[in-house]
Amino acid sequence: MNLENINIQFGNILRKTREARGLTQEKFASLCDISRAYYGRIERGEHSVTLDLCKKISDVLGISLAELFSDLP
Amino acid sequence: MNLENINIQFGNILRKTREARGLTQEKFASLCDISRAYYGRIERGEHSVTLDLCKKISDVLGISLAELFSDLP
Repeated sequence: MNLENINIQFGNILRKTREARGLTQEKFASLCDISRAYYGRIERGEHSVTLDLCKKISDVLGISLAELFSDLP
Repeated sequence: MNLENINIQFGNILRKTREARGLTQEKFASLCDISRAYYGRIERGEHSVTLDLCKKISDVLGISLAELFSDLP
């Protein structure tokens, strides 16, 4: 798994975290002030998120950046 | 401090980590395969790094992404 592209790994973690909280992509994207299409690309690992957006995502989830990345190599 | 822009906070942590290892901006930028000018903008918080580059930086430092962000909110 850790040989896989970091963006794909991050997208998989994001999807699991979002689904665990019962949020749709639409709802989560709006909470992060981004479009659902853009959010979908992030979850599929097609886009490398910026630190700014990572911070917005971790704030929406109520966790720290370190916690957001805790399962990444 | 945590009200400050996340990019500035990250840049400050990066500079401290780099200096603690006795690396110049020039040397560290070359290890990360980016220009010194671009690296300087990152350290000054003028640019929001992507997850791809964060992973390259953490690999160069020999630490995990979570460790790289451990001092960020």
